[in-house]
Amino acid sequence: MKKFEEKTIATTPIFTGRVISLQVDEVELPDGKKGKREIVKHPGAVAIIAMTDEGKLVLVEQFRKAMERTLMEIPAGKLEPGEEPIVTAGRELEEETGYVCEEMEHVTSFYTSPGFADEYIHIFEAKGLRKKENAASLDEDEFVELLEVTLEEAAVLMKEGKIHDAKTVYALQYLLLKNR
Amino acid sequence: MKKFEEKTIATTPIFTGRVISLQVDEVELPDGKKGKREIVKHPGAVAIIAMTDEGKLVLVEQFRKAMERTLMEIPAGKLEPGEEPIVTAGRELEEETGYVCEEMEHVTSFYTSPGFADEYIHIFEAKGLRKKENAASLDEDEFVELLEVTLEEAAVLMKEGKIHDAKTVYALQYLLLKNR
Repeated sequence: MKKFEEKTIATTPIFTGRVISLQVDEVELPDGKKGKREIVKHPGAVAIIAMTDEGKLVLVEQFRKAMERTLMEIPAGKLEPGEEPIVTAGRELEEETGYVCEEMEHVTSFYTSPGFADEYIHIFEAKGLRKKENAASLDEDEFVELLEVTLEEAAVLMKEGKIHDAKTVYALQYLLLKNR
Repeated sequence: MKKFEEKTIATTPIFTGRVISLQVDEVELPDGKKGKREIVKHPGAVAIIAMTDEGKLVLVEQFRKAMERTLMEIPAGKLEPGEEPIVTAGRELEEETGYVCEEMEHVTSFYTSPGFADEYIHIFEAKGLRKKENAASLDEDEFVELLEVTLEEAAVLMKEGKIHDAKTVYALQYLLLKNR
């Protein structure tokens, strides 16, 4: 048995949407008591750390409805069924930024919110960026603006609260550690 | 108007739970078309970077039902209504680890999953740790095991996939950048 395993007694599906689904599991806790766990299922995601030849980090600014505000984030997107994360990474980079790359290297993967969601995000680093003519375009409900910033500018944007999400903060730390 | 703002046409509440709630917003997109956004509402959370006098990072291992596995994470917990994040941080540190601290310093805050959730996590660094006798205990549905690891051991645990979540990866990078 896994340590502290919580055995499923019953699963109640609550909602199935286009991006996420929600279920409530009734579980047997390690002490034999019963408990409930609210669980968001997510298909998983990729995010791409992309530096231009001029040493600028590629960001996209977009409106995030959950927070009712715009955020500046590294390019990212969710996995399509059956798609390899590295393929998703190349597709999202092209769609959101118009860049393609010579090499897409896996950096790490992590859960974003293990307390209530199974979202697992794969971080890639895109090397050898070049602008593509007639690049693939965004999904019809996506509106993003491309930004390219130095690491110093990114640090200021983070202090100002415009860069404000886990994957982008990760990317900035990764680049600082790499360039030290 | 905020850039790319998506105006709410209607909000449909789907679920209200103990930890999260779920709603679907019908929105007017920037091009005038309509779209839907699935939004998880979360009360917000804190996580605590705590190093012992022996230079070890304090972690807790716990079963995470969403992933059906145990993870090793920095101590964390969700905000209670009306509670200041710094107070939550002190309480969660004591409950999950038995440690109290002389100083709790705010490091940063970020959204964990801006694509579908408003969860906002505040990261604190606990300084001057000491074990408390008769420390406050865990919520009745929480089961965690305390671990103390060097940064080298933490790096190995990350490679092995036992450390595998955004806030703990952030903490490791933060400590590496601080100690460089």
